[in-house]
Amino acid sequence: MSEEQHSTAGAYVTGAEFTRDTNYIQDRIVADPDAVRTSGEPNEGSIGTVHGGLAEGAELWPVEAGRYRLVAARACPWANRAIIVRRLLGLEDAISLGTPGPVHDARSWTFDLDPGGVDPILGTERIQENYFKRFDDYPRGITVPAIVDVPTGGVVTNDYPQITLDLSTQWKEFHRAGAPDLLPEDQLEEMMPIIKRIFTEVNNGVYRCGFAGSQESYDEAYDRLWIAMDWLEERLATRRFLMGDSITEADVRLFTTLVRFDPVYHGHFKANRNKLTEMPNLWGYARDLFALPGFGDTIDFDQIKKHYYVVHEDINPTQIVPVGPDLSNWLEPHGREALGGNPWGNGTAPEPVRESELVASGHNPLYPLL
Amino acid sequence: MSEEQHSTAGAYVTGAEFTRDTNYIQDRIVADPDAVRTSGEPNEGSIGTVHGGLAEGAELWPVEAGRYRLVAARACPWANRAIIVRRLLGLEDAISLGTPGPVHDARSWTFDLDPGGVDPILGTERIQENYFKRFDDYPRGITVPAIVDVPTGGVVTNDYPQITLDLSTQWKEFHRAGAPDLLPEDQLEEMMPIIKRIFTEVNNGVYRCGFAGSQESYDEAYDRLWIAMDWLEERLATRRFLMGDSITEADVRLFTTLVRFDPVYHGHFKANRNKLTEMPNLWGYARDLFALPGFGDTIDFDQIKKHYYVVHEDINPTQIVPVGPDLSNWLEPHGREALGGNPWGNGTAPEPVRESELVASGHNPLYPLL
Repeated sequence: MSEEQHSTAGAYVTGAEFTRDTNYIQDRIVADPDAVRTSGEPNEGSIGTVHGGLAEGAELWPVEAGRYRLVAARACPWANRAIIVRRLLGLEDAISLGTPGPVHDARSWTFDLDPGGVDPILGTERIQENYFKRFDDYPRGITVPAIVDVPTGGVVTNDYPQITLDLSTQWKEFHRAGAPDLLPEDQLEEMMPIIKRIFTEVNNGVYRCGFAGSQESYDEAYDRLWIAMDWLEERLATRRFLMGDSITEADVRLFTTLVRFDPVYHGHFKANRNKLTEMPNLWGYARDLFALPGFGDTIDFDQIKKHYYVVHEDINPTQIVPVGPDLSNWLEPHGREALGGNPWGNGTAPEPVRESELVASGHNPLYPLL
Repeated sequence: MSEEQHSTAGAYVTGAEFTRDTNYIQDRIVADPDAVRTSGEPNEGSIGTVHGGLAEGAELWPVEAGRYRLVAARACPWANRAIIVRRLLGLEDAISLGTPGPVHDARSWTFDLDPGGVDPILGTERIQENYFKRFDDYPRGITVPAIVDVPTGGVVTNDYPQITLDLSTQWKEFHRAGAPDLLPEDQLEEMMPIIKRIFTEVNNGVYRCGFAGSQESYDEAYDRLWIAMDWLEERLATRRFLMGDSITEADVRLFTTLVRFDPVYHGHFKANRNKLTEMPNLWGYARDLFALPGFGDTIDFDQIKKHYYVVHEDINPTQIVPVGPDLSNWLEPHGREALGGNPWGNGTAPEPVRESELVASGHNPLYPLL
């Protein structure tokens, strides 16, 4: 069972319990290299760092519009974060987007949805080629999201927790007017532990359920997950978003798991105490986010389901993809406006998604079958 | 993939579509052999016959209290029917009950839950031995329910659709006072086609989803199932039970599938347009039945989940059994009394289940963990 079969972000099973590989290319693209070099603690890996420095051995790259390409499969929850943040901040013109298809093979995610099966900018068939252009003996998981340096074709970073933070903090020069502040300085102290708990217990918690190697480790994983889900349900009873009145990075990170919950994690990963739709606060919250430009318009439910059910042959040997669940309820009124607040804080909503980046019709209730 | 791995009642895959094996021992235990010999059309197999005759080559056995043992795994939906009808009609003293455990091997259901792993009346470890006592080269699926002739130890019949009908029509002499009429003469003409549609589209429809050999056959199976589920949802909007005011054989046959829907079929068989709990009429109806003595008290959710998730290694290779779903909602008020009627018709409810036949604590919300 290769790392890539297990997870879109590199993972492995040690003994009976599932453990996520946190060994990434931790280079960063930054606005001011000196500031990063002299800043605090290095990036610890699992959730990224807002004010900290560079991981040991990692390199710095300059922010430069048009130079980099974000390679992010719509199916992958870790890549989905970057697609959302790029949209929210209006970085579409500064950083282009390449989208591998949902079904990767043992070697790599592939550009099978692009004309000729080749990424139109990178000219490669599989993102693995771009990893090899950077390190010709790259030994770790071939994962998305990956940011590629277009002139050389090499992967700059696949450090998914850091990528979205750096889009907020390092690319400010290229943010659209009205871009929301996803990392409000006065909320970071409260937010980073929440982001961490969401990562270990929920984002990764569903994988821990699905890839448990024994009944015992599954049972433990299930309990851990639902303790965290109940905590979130309670937290969202009085707060419209995780940090209060407006969206932040924490919401992006929770959303990409919630949107996959009923279509995939509930059945495929046996995270089935209840559906998301049975938790009123979390379900209303998820729909509130889904309806915001930049969230729901990045979601391709067909690709999401196909990815998990086809790639994970070890837990779904037939590779049959369920037709359900019915997803039309994502567009039902959520009533969360009653909690007040403004999703965008002092900013504004992004423009509608550009046509070249539209999700295919029928793949999302926002885009009905034509 | 053996027949037994596929299903508790014998089944096989031909090409991509799942087909149920309807080749059973079609002997019958009857009150008046002459009446059966001279009656109408022979039993056609899939739903059984109320007034018809004997299948070709089958034999007749006399009704006799204490002579036969019903062998019925609580896990199995087809066996569950017989356990329910025996309870409703008060046949516990006339026909004893043997209960194999949930996890059979490739050869047979086994009496692994009984002391010493041996059925206390039959003295066998596996029901296969009782099939071989009847036919020493028995070539077909070793299935439950099976009725065994205790004196000889041989299986009399495993013809599950006929077994419950004969409990109603042939064992009248031993019915308890107040036993409900599950086959009201004036409703048969309407009821038998409903029973047939429930069998082909729902009872068997969920298996057709779960054991589809291709995406195409799964997609077709899914559509067929939900057309039928919507039909039932509509039918139950104005009728408290399937035939109106009181329970009948049709309700028994639908109930054993509904009770397994969310715990098993929704995820394991990918019958996941929605949960049963998301269909208000069917869900209220299922809870109404569950609360009646003879229905809910026969249900062992632990055995049900373990059976499907452990036995079907071909679709759940890890054999991990989900902890969910939360089942406490089975006891919530269903409000179906508002539709009027009386479940028992002119009869009465059965006595509480006898202690020797109680479901283990923690295996059903009616029997909380002690």
